[in-house]
Amino acid sequence: MIVDCDPGHDDALALLLAAGDPRARLLGVTTVAGNQTLDKTTRNALRVLALAGVRDVPVAAGCDRPLVGELTVAEDIHGASGLDGPDLDVPVAEVVGVHAVELMRRLITDAAEPVTVVATGPLTNVALLLRRHPEVMPGIGRIVFMGGSTERGNTTPYGEFNIVTDPEAADIVLRSGLPLTMIGLNVTHQAPATGEIIDEFRGMGTRLGAICAELMMFFAATYHRVFGFEHPPVHDPIAVARVLDPSIVRTVAAPVSIELAGAFTRGATVVDLHHRTGRPSNVDVAVGLDVDAFWRLLLAAVRALGR
Amino acid sequence: MIVDCDPGHDDALALLLAAGDPRARLLGVTTVAGNQTLDKTTRNALRVLALAGVRDVPVAAGCDRPLVGELTVAEDIHGASGLDGPDLDVPVAEVVGVHAVELMRRLITDAAEPVTVVATGPLTNVALLLRRHPEVMPGIGRIVFMGGSTERGNTTPYGEFNIVTDPEAADIVLRSGLPLTMIGLNVTHQAPATGEIIDEFRGMGTRLGAICAELMMFFAATYHRVFGFEHPPVHDPIAVARVLDPSIVRTVAAPVSIELAGAFTRGATVVDLHHRTGRPSNVDVAVGLDVDAFWRLLLAAVRALGR
Amino acid sequence: MIVDCDPGHDDALALLLAAGDPRARLLGVTTVAGNQTLDKTTRNALRVLALAGVRDVPVAAGCDRPLVGELTVAEDIHGASGLDGPDLDVPVAEVVGVHAVELMRRLITDAAEPVTVVATGPLTNVALLLRRHPEVMPGIGRIVFMGGSTERGNTTPYGEFNIVTDPEAADIVLRSGLPLTMIGLNVTHQAPATGEIIDEFRGMGTRLGAICAELMMFFAATYHRVFGFEHPPVHDPIAVARVLDPSIVRTVAAPVSIELAGAFTRGATVVDLHHRTGRPSNVDVAVGLDVDAFWRLLLAAVRALGR
Amino acid sequence: MIVDCDPGHDDALALLLAAGDPRARLLGVTTVAGNQTLDKTTRNALRVLALAGVRDVPVAAGCDRPLVGELTVAEDIHGASGLDGPDLDVPVAEVVGVHAVELMRRLITDAAEPVTVVATGPLTNVALLLRRHPEVMPGIGRIVFMGGSTERGNTTPYGEFNIVTDPEAADIVLRSGLPLTMIGLNVTHQAPATGEIIDEFRGMGTRLGAICAELMMFFAATYHRVFGFEHPPVHDPIAVARVLDPSIVRTVAAPVSIELAGAFTRGATVVDLHHRTGRPSNVDVAVGLDVDAFWRLLLAAVRALGR
Repeated sequence: MIVDCDPGHDDALALLLAAGDPRARLLGVTTVAGNQTLDKTTRNALRVLALAGVRDVPVAAGCDRPLVGELTVAEDIHGASGLDGPDLDVPVAEVVGVHAVELMRRLITDAAEPVTVVATGPLTNVALLLRRHPEVMPGIGRIVFMGGSTERGNTTPYGEFNIVTDPEAADIVLRSGLPLTMIGLNVTHQAPATGEIIDEFRGMGTRLGAICAELMMFFAATYHRVFGFEHPPVHDPIAVARVLDPSIVRTVAAPVSIELAGAFTRGATVVDLHHRTGRPSNVDVAVGLDVDAFWRLLLAAVRALGR
Repeated sequence: MIVDCDPGHDDALALLLAAGDPRARLLGVTTVAGNQTLDKTTRNALRVLALAGVRDVPVAAGCDRPLVGELTVAEDIHGASGLDGPDLDVPVAEVVGVHAVELMRRLITDAAEPVTVVATGPLTNVALLLRRHPEVMPGIGRIVFMGGSTERGNTTPYGEFNIVTDPEAADIVLRSGLPLTMIGLNVTHQAPATGEIIDEFRGMGTRLGAICAELMMFFAATYHRVFGFEHPPVHDPIAVARVLDPSIVRTVAAPVSIELAGAFTRGATVVDLHHRTGRPSNVDVAVGLDVDAFWRLLLAAVRALGR
Repeated sequence: MIVDCDPGHDDALALLLAAGDPRARLLGVTTVAGNQTLDKTTRNALRVLALAGVRDVPVAAGCDRPLVGELTVAEDIHGASGLDGPDLDVPVAEVVGVHAVELMRRLITDAAEPVTVVATGPLTNVALLLRRHPEVMPGIGRIVFMGGSTERGNTTPYGEFNIVTDPEAADIVLRSGLPLTMIGLNVTHQAPATGEIIDEFRGMGTRLGAICAELMMFFAATYHRVFGFEHPPVHDPIAVARVLDPSIVRTVAAPVSIELAGAFTRGATVVDLHHRTGRPSNVDVAVGLDVDAFWRLLLAAVRALGR
Repeated sequence: MIVDCDPGHDDALALLLAAGDPRARLLGVTTVAGNQTLDKTTRNALRVLALAGVRDVPVAAGCDRPLVGELTVAEDIHGASGLDGPDLDVPVAEVVGVHAVELMRRLITDAAEPVTVVATGPLTNVALLLRRHPEVMPGIGRIVFMGGSTERGNTTPYGEFNIVTDPEAADIVLRSGLPLTMIGLNVTHQAPATGEIIDEFRGMGTRLGAICAELMMFFAATYHRVFGFEHPPVHDPIAVARVLDPSIVRTVAAPVSIELAGAFTRGATVVDLHHRTGRPSNVDVAVGLDVDAFWRLLLAAVRALGR
């Protein structure tokens, strides 16, 4: 799998899951502007991989803004660095000298079998890949993205951050005809990082475990302040978990459209669960989560990475 | 209170609650196109009042279409008559010879104290009243409307039928500055008419009870077919219940906007529950329901009407 | 004819033409918020009629805001009073004690033959009449409105003031199925009040002529400042002229839609002159003007009113 | 200069002008879907260059659809081949083996001085270049595009074909901060290919001249049928002419926005000529054309190419 991300506290966990799970084969990591600016999300990705001891996975930086319009980052949620909380001082590797889109193209072209693209940030890089290199589309087995919601959003009442940040990119991906899985807030809000979970991270006795605990504590503070949540949901690793063990997430096929207009609803993922519009299903939409199995998977991966 | 409605199976229950509860003082009933065409919703209102033995409440027909655009009725939910299911053959009264807007104006003007307007259909009549007779606004104590949702809709993924049918009317009401209570799908879906409830209606041993049971059985069938619901929610009487006993519905003040544009989201009620937009709260939004107390109230009212 | 207006410098000329032309039968004047607030446009209408010596035409005030959204007046064009420039001190009549919509309803109902409604302001009152009293529609022979454009607008690049001020009202009128004539900027910009025209007004030697000259000089100053026009166009009287002498304005039948959404184009009149959309024609759209005949008509009317 | 085009009858003339004018230095030609599908516009570009005897200019095919949404071609205007009319049988060169975006990137990167990009089709390739390779932006001296209008459109009442085909691409280009020149319908409609012009082409006595005459006769027939025009406007070569001799086109700086929403106006270029919005000017908008000088330039180029 390729992970395209904008770390981000929950993206960090997604990377750790993709790096630490024994079944995962992480081909590359690409970064995009979203939770913070591109330079910060890229540095954060490099830091997380370094802390996890991952050395052989290429990282490439991609788009520094959405396809259309201006970038708005989520500093209120992820802090000034995009990964506020723990001390992340660690020597990091270099990015490879190509654009994220080019790295994805090469990895997909070189792969012996179809590649799964896991996107945990705005879909800018992925959309650009599809438009610039449509020839790679047969090499993409599935795109699993964290984004959207069948219910309420988080950035606007009906808009989730990743999709609201680049609605046109999401529209391109959703109309691509590729196999798609949407991991929306309706399931990610079922997996809050409770005190017990944070204790589990801390109890590992490793620097990585301690960092995860501190990341979650920072995340808890901002989610409490902004949304009044008791515990913060960890959105992104659920997308990776779905790839590693499909039984963890239950999906239904449904027509999903992106609202590109709308004075108050731009970026909403409009999921026609009851098939009232007559449009064909284009997305496997997550509607259920095996919360315990998910946390077991994630904790085991972080434990396995040790350090 | 004045009930402005488009019966409609659940509007029928709302009328019965407003007619049968000892605390209710039903000043008038006005009708609007919505669940069915105006002639049908008006005839249905007259039938329900006749079956309930209500003789002294004036009924007036109002708008036969939304302010802007064309009318789309909910025949798939309420049937060809708008109140399919039971035999409703009963001699009915005449409507009064004035438009719904004029009847509302007179009732509000003549009332000794501020009037509560309960709207269980599209808000066309109410909006027209506010624009044509702004002088009555001080005489309106509150508008309690069944419509919208803090979560998903029923007519479109994010649009509820009453609001989607006339979004501009809803916008006028929501920007009016009057005290407003929104009873949305998020609470009305908590009060399904289960088999036990239907048995209660049937067990009353009255024609009215039997009719209510049959209405609910028809409603159950269409909700099952269209939405896959096991039991049908009864939306509208909850708005009346809120007026009779505020403790039945818990509300929070929030900014609510109507999406008037949007390719897929026109008519969505955009409820800023987390106050992220900085706009002032304009609606008391229902977020909780005392289900048992609600059914007790409704069943008691129908029982009291006897017949 | 009934003139529904928001005076406004050019509305004033429209009223004078409707009052002074021997063929005109002015049944009533109704006012609406637009160029200025309702109280100002109403006072201005009363002043103009008083200055013209018109005593037997009822005047009623209507809507003080658009159907949807907030009012934005054109103070930059018409000044703080809505009719800045000359001294308009004159004893005025009272408005009749009913709303503009009610006056229109009565006049149409009482008329022996179909009435032409000339609207020179936002279409709020007219739309409200159609929705509140659909029964009068057969009594309306035609609605001739100054508004919109087949080309550019004046308030926004593609939006003309009257339509932009209340797009929903315009939409209601345009979908009404009534015979409609649109007098847009594309023709009204062909009739600027040149120095010669102003000299003609002044040369009449009457107070009314002098006032018209001063109105045009104020109008010239604001049009020059805001739009860089050498001479100001007089939009509204062309709508009245069309009624008095149809040969003055050439029209073509075309489908016209109002853009209700749009981030930059809300309120645009989208005129499908080449019939590329396949929609049926709903409006007779003015496309040509006999400028000389128009001015002859207008100057003769003002001259006839004397004073 | 680089010409990015979708030939298309008028694109063909643009290519001939860029190939035949002594001042022009044509670095490359890239193609995009628009007037016809990408394979057809690419073949047409190759044919036109072959007929013009141009052998050393690389041609690359680009995007086969707009960034967002589906492609709609202009077969009613340009015929089934995209260049219907004359016999265009000629041996053609091959495209270079890279995507249009990559060819543009290389040409701009390799150029000794800033390159002018002339775009005569939808702006898909250009927008993709800016998003995928933002590092080339300093190497772009100016983007001159045929598209949009300060007045009416041709595809929709307010939408011109190139912009309506890919509004998001246009939006990306217009927000890029690069020097931009917009050659819209308001000027291109001033340069119809009259009978005298067609006679001039025919009178050259060359195959190329005869082909140009036949292209214009086909174009005349479709413009007459669809729009009722007596003579067809030749839009695209005016963009090239502006580069070769800026005195031919008069421009004013203005704020221009693309309408991305809108039920009837999507793709409109909203040009704030009177600076009423307060937004900064981002485009040099063509407002005047020296028609005679333009035709002299174009005819001389075709004559110079001989054949």
